[in-house]
Amino acid sequence: MCQLLGMNCAVPADITFSFTGFAARGGKTDHHGDGFGIGFFEGNACRLLIDTQPSSVSPMADLIKRYPIKSTNVIAHIRKATHGAVNLENCHPFMRELWGRHWLFAHNGNLRDYRPSNLSVYRPIGSTDSENAFCALLEKMREYSPDEQPPLDELFRMVEGFVREVNKEGTFNFLLSNGQVLFAHCSTRLQYLIRQWPFSQARLIDADLEMDFSRTNGENDRIAVIATTPLTQNENWTSFEPGELLMFSQGLPVLRTLIPIPEDVQKRNAEDRSYV
Amino acid sequence: MCQLLGMNCAVPADITFSFTGFAARGGKTDHHGDGFGIGFFEGNACRLLIDTQPSSVSPMADLIKRYPIKSTNVIAHIRKATHGAVNLENCHPFMRELWGRHWLFAHNGNLRDYRPSNLSVYRPIGSTDSENAFCALLEKMREYSPDEQPPLDELFRMVEGFVREVNKEGTFNFLLSNGQVLFAHCSTRLQYLIRQWPFSQARLIDADLEMDFSRTNGENDRIAVIATTPLTQNENWTSFEPGELLMFSQGLPVLRTLIPIPEDVQKRNAEDRSYV
Repeated sequence: MCQLLGMNCAVPADITFSFTGFAARGGKTDHHGDGFGIGFFEGNACRLLIDTQPSSVSPMADLIKRYPIKSTNVIAHIRKATHGAVNLENCHPFMRELWGRHWLFAHNGNLRDYRPSNLSVYRPIGSTDSENAFCALLEKMREYSPDEQPPLDELFRMVEGFVREVNKEGTFNFLLSNGQVLFAHCSTRLQYLIRQWPFSQARLIDADLEMDFSRTNGENDRIAVIATTPLTQNENWTSFEPGELLMFSQGLPVLRTLIPIPEDVQKRNAEDRSYV
Repeated sequence: MCQLLGMNCAVPADITFSFTGFAARGGKTDHHGDGFGIGFFEGNACRLLIDTQPSSVSPMADLIKRYPIKSTNVIAHIRKATHGAVNLENCHPFMRELWGRHWLFAHNGNLRDYRPSNLSVYRPIGSTDSENAFCALLEKMREYSPDEQPPLDELFRMVEGFVREVNKEGTFNFLLSNGQVLFAHCSTRLQYLIRQWPFSQARLIDADLEMDFSRTNGENDRIAVIATTPLTQNENWTSFEPGELLMFSQGLPVLRTLIPIPEDVQKRNAEDRSYV
């Protein structure tokens, strides 16, 4: 399996601190060493860095730890390959254009033999179940509204409907963003926290690093961090419920729904967790 | 205007040497300091790095000079903004998916008020004439063959037909790749060279750096380097003719055509060259 990291902010912020802890799990403090990727939105465009090297040793990961790229929406992924070879084609996050803006998607889970039948505009480049699911979601959204992006609450209902379908196929923890908002869905494991005024100190679990956010942030800053498991040891992380879908905007969860996971899938998900 | 750098190889090679000279032109030895980008193909996938900082000082450019990423097809671009603001959305190369593989496009020129009317599947994210042209080309290719990539010679005829149309709109030097082959078109300025067995030494024009390729390359290596102007001072660069379109494969130009440039455009191109 893999691990996910997401950030959604009220004001552009850099993710160097959280990414430093997260990247250590790619081959150093944990075994997710089959490549990594991270995408940073700026306006409607996205800057995506991917590498097949483990994030704990990759020079590209090292750059991201040192180069503070300010962004309101970030999605990162470290991979432990289940479906698809270890190559660039299969590195998450995946990126596509829809309605004149970039979309970014990363998945932690296992959709087994999932092969969507509706793909016409969007085609997977690699061989992962994850990229197939992303293409199917974009296809569905484009069919619903070919020309322009619907309002965010309609977008949320569309993502919800899609999760309802794909939930049947297996474990489907994912992060999705269009640069405005960030969707996070939990099948098995996902947590989040909100950093806001008055900010406090945080200490990483996976690296010897502490940060006093009260010195670097102001009243207007608010940052939601979403991760497979907590990255810091002294902050209040909130667990997603299995089946929970949240939409984050401006550093806060603003829309929420609970999508039932079929019983047989729950059982399979529980088995999958054993090798997370 | 901007400058272009491309590489097409028989065997994956790294571009650190050529990029070191090229990147210096982004704000140090030349004035193309409004951002840069570089895309590296590996299989059907592409790794794209873009930055709004000048390539002569950007930490991302610095990484590329130090981290030898092996690839058979590379396209890089340094920008001197004419159309569109200096932001990430307008950084070349632009990347999209077609026929289950990534496509990469970078442009040096000025298409003035070009706005293609046929865009349905591909939509520009930024505001450049260049991204509009790329979207129009992909749209045309998808219309011609919705499901799978036609043979390379047909692809070449399609690109040729597209150039014939867009040539009327202004200066259209560009590099285009699908990870298999690299297309290069010259309206005003473009040069190339082939490095092959027995390799020799090369010395950069824009940086104090020399490389003895005979020590790092073997008989099976062959590398075509395409650039707006020569990057080395002691190699034989070949000038493209204005209107020339080449398709490079395995480090060699394998298909060639000459597309006449309308007289009024030639006149405008000549004016444009004054501020290249």
